[in-house]
Amino acid sequence: MHVRNGPDRLLGWERRTELPLLLASMLFLVCYAVRVLNHSPDPFWRDLALALALLIWLLFVVDYGVRLVLSGEGLRFVRTHWLDTVVLVLPLLRPLRIVNTYVTLQRRRDRPRLSLYGRVMAYAGITSVLLSFAAALAVYQQERDAPGATITTFGDSVWWACSAITTVGYGDVTPVTPLGRVYAVFLMACGLALLGAVTGSFSSWLIQVFGKEDKEGPPGSDRSPGAPP
Amino acid sequence: MHVRNGPDRLLGWERRTELPLLLASMLFLVCYAVRVLNHSPDPFWRDLALALALLIWLLFVVDYGVRLVLSGEGLRFVRTHWLDTVVLVLPLLRPLRIVNTYVTLQRRRDRPRLSLYGRVMAYAGITSVLLSFAAALAVYQQERDAPGATITTFGDSVWWACSAITTVGYGDVTPVTPLGRVYAVFLMACGLALLGAVTGSFSSWLIQVFGKEDKEGPPGSDRSPGAPP
Amino acid sequence: MHVRNGPDRLLGWERRTELPLLLASMLFLVCYAVRVLNHSPDPFWRDLALALALLIWLLFVVDYGVRLVLSGEGLRFVRTHWLDTVVLVLPLLRPLRIVNTYVTLQRRRDRPRLSLYGRVMAYAGITSVLLSFAAALAVYQQERDAPGATITTFGDSVWWACSAITTVGYGDVTPVTPLGRVYAVFLMACGLALLGAVTGSFSSWLIQVFGKEDKEGPPGSDRSPGAPP
Amino acid sequence: MHVRNGPDRLLGWERRTELPLLLASMLFLVCYAVRVLNHSPDPFWRDLALALALLIWLLFVVDYGVRLVLSGEGLRFVRTHWLDTVVLVLPLLRPLRIVNTYVTLQRRRDRPRLSLYGRVMAYAGITSVLLSFAAALAVYQQERDAPGATITTFGDSVWWACSAITTVGYGDVTPVTPLGRVYAVFLMACGLALLGAVTGSFSSWLIQVFGKEDKEGPPGSDRSPGAPP
Repeated sequence: MHVRNGPDRLLGWERRTELPLLLASMLFLVCYAVRVLNHSPDPFWRDLALALALLIWLLFVVDYGVRLVLSGEGLRFVRTHWLDTVVLVLPLLRPLRIVNTYVTLQRRRDRPRLSLYGRVMAYAGITSVLLSFAAALAVYQQERDAPGATITTFGDSVWWACSAITTVGYGDVTPVTPLGRVYAVFLMACGLALLGAVTGSFSSWLIQVFGKEDKEGPPGSDRSPGAPP
Repeated sequence: MHVRNGPDRLLGWERRTELPLLLASMLFLVCYAVRVLNHSPDPFWRDLALALALLIWLLFVVDYGVRLVLSGEGLRFVRTHWLDTVVLVLPLLRPLRIVNTYVTLQRRRDRPRLSLYGRVMAYAGITSVLLSFAAALAVYQQERDAPGATITTFGDSVWWACSAITTVGYGDVTPVTPLGRVYAVFLMACGLALLGAVTGSFSSWLIQVFGKEDKEGPPGSDRSPGAPP
Repeated sequence: MHVRNGPDRLLGWERRTELPLLLASMLFLVCYAVRVLNHSPDPFWRDLALALALLIWLLFVVDYGVRLVLSGEGLRFVRTHWLDTVVLVLPLLRPLRIVNTYVTLQRRRDRPRLSLYGRVMAYAGITSVLLSFAAALAVYQQERDAPGATITTFGDSVWWACSAITTVGYGDVTPVTPLGRVYAVFLMACGLALLGAVTGSFSSWLIQVFGKEDKEGPPGSDRSPGAPP
Repeated sequence: MHVRNGPDRLLGWERRTELPLLLASMLFLVCYAVRVLNHSPDPFWRDLALALALLIWLLFVVDYGVRLVLSGEGLRFVRTHWLDTVVLVLPLLRPLRIVNTYVTLQRRRDRPRLSLYGRVMAYAGITSVLLSFAAALAVYQQERDAPGATITTFGDSVWWACSAITTVGYGDVTPVTPLGRVYAVFLMACGLALLGAVTGSFSSWLIQVFGKEDKEGPPGSDRSPGAPP
């Protein structure tokens, strides 16, 4: 495995920071959840969460700046790494960078444990769950005090997000505020693509499992055909 | 056809038990249906169904234990056969193991009767039907006595399950209890993947049927092009 | 183009009857529409449509019988041509046999006019339209006089069928009778597969159009890239 | 890059007019939006928009006529360029010709900047957005004064269009007028195919990203794996 025509120092920086930053983005999501879901009269936890979230965001800004400088691309970096730029402005979307993190982490290992389809399913599935959770939080924050809202509890919001990301769309609870609907459209668009990837990979994997027998006989009994190889 | 580097005794056990256990899991589903749908004042049938279901579950536990020992993997078996572990805890999902059963049964035959696409469609279709039926039962049990429920008859529940698994999602009847919604999310996620497999296979098959003529002329009249070859 | 190991007389029969029978099945659909949609006090047109529909059904039975005898398969024919058997019992579904008709008709031509993707899209699209129309008629017949029905005009029924076959499923109008819901489930299942074929073919075609330029430069201006090649 | 057996003058005409006409079709959409959304008592802007829209339509007619003559195909042109004919009659659908424009514009460049999947995603995505916007305008015009309408603001109409094109279909706001429903069916059918292309391309791209590492090691750090290559 070799590094091809890329700045070595940027690569080294990404290798060292990717995992801590992924954990930091999870913590950011937790802080946001505390801000939204904690209704106690004592604002201590909400204030702590806000402070922590701002601190993590500062971390993201520093990381972005360091990588911009190390890349040596100047402002072209903003365009070539557009996904990084978007998640810097909207840190709740940082889970979308998980493919990037995965690729960086792979460099440390010798070889992947899961098959191609298994990996696509796992990572698209995880991103779907994180996006749904973030959207449920953001929509709940907008809707809970809106007049005529049907999403009045966080449970309703999660139920709505699940029916939106699977494109089922029951319509028993729906966002009514303009900003809530903007979040909803974003979730529907992202989720559709991610879930399409999960579905497509599952379909390809199933065809592969059934097709393998035709060529080489049934698989051995020590490998469960029910699990993605 | 040969056995490749797998413990022969585990393979033999699976070969002998797979079909009886599949029938037992069908019977388990029937027992659960009796528990849920029988409303007569006399609890005899409900008690009988409960006893039978527990007995079948015991069978599953024994089978799992025997395979765990025969595999020689120790507790690693729990992780490598995660689908088996899940269906042990939630026996209503056992229909999901039908791919496994199919592969085991194939070893007895000389060659498959259906084409690759036909098999994927048939098995994903059957699993979709069994999952919908199990979900309709489970949701009906949760919803029937809930305040404000829209799913009040088993017919409503089946209608809801069909609209959920096809991702149509009318929303005229929807689960309102927390547990009912958890079942619903599970059905939507599983069903989406399974139905995606059916749709993808049908699409591939249709393209194959239309594409075949280009290469080798129209198929003979003794093979109905309307049936998956 | 040659006939491969198939009974020549069956092939000849199918070649001669396929197109008339396709037209007859269209006429059957029209007769059914007259029965359902004609509300005039004078029953003349409804009676005429009934008589004509029965006559066409008799034609289908005779055709099925002749092909059963010519095939020389005896009762095995019922199973090998299961799609033909289904559409004999439920003649409204006869549009599903359009792939068969297409294949039979192809034998008369020298070569197809449309590309592979174009043909799959055209035939799956036509079948989707015919199925939606038949389902809209059948559901309207069940629902129009049902208590609590939301589908009260044929326009409502067509609107419902369109939202069902595209899996959008608004839920503003939905069937409430048991038989109407059975038709609905059938439409959702069939339509999902057919529309999946249309979507998949369109996607493949678009990728092909965009991919072609990479290999051989832009297509000539005398071939509209907007039309399936 | 060479022109293959196509009339050179038609090609030259298309090369010169394609980009101005694309901008003109955007302006047409803006004029239509002004007609629909401007509610001020002073009809000045509405009248200006109408005049401009008619002028642009005249431009389209002239362009169609010139291309019909240059092609030398006579009336056969109407059929071979059926998509052009459709968008001449319904100029709101002109965004659908964007694939054509793209191909014409490509001839000026040396090589494409985006990968195959990236281009399919970008162009299908842009067409989806334009179609949704046009459908939201057209449906809003029909529905706003209809009795019993649920789509009463343009925001409702955009929200409805987004839920329709992603096949989520909440049903909280739905068209009730016959013409509004015809537009809706058209949007659902077009959007399903376009979005299917986006989803399929994204899925293929994700599988490609994950699959590339297996063959050639991880990609270099100067190319963000989060952006379509």
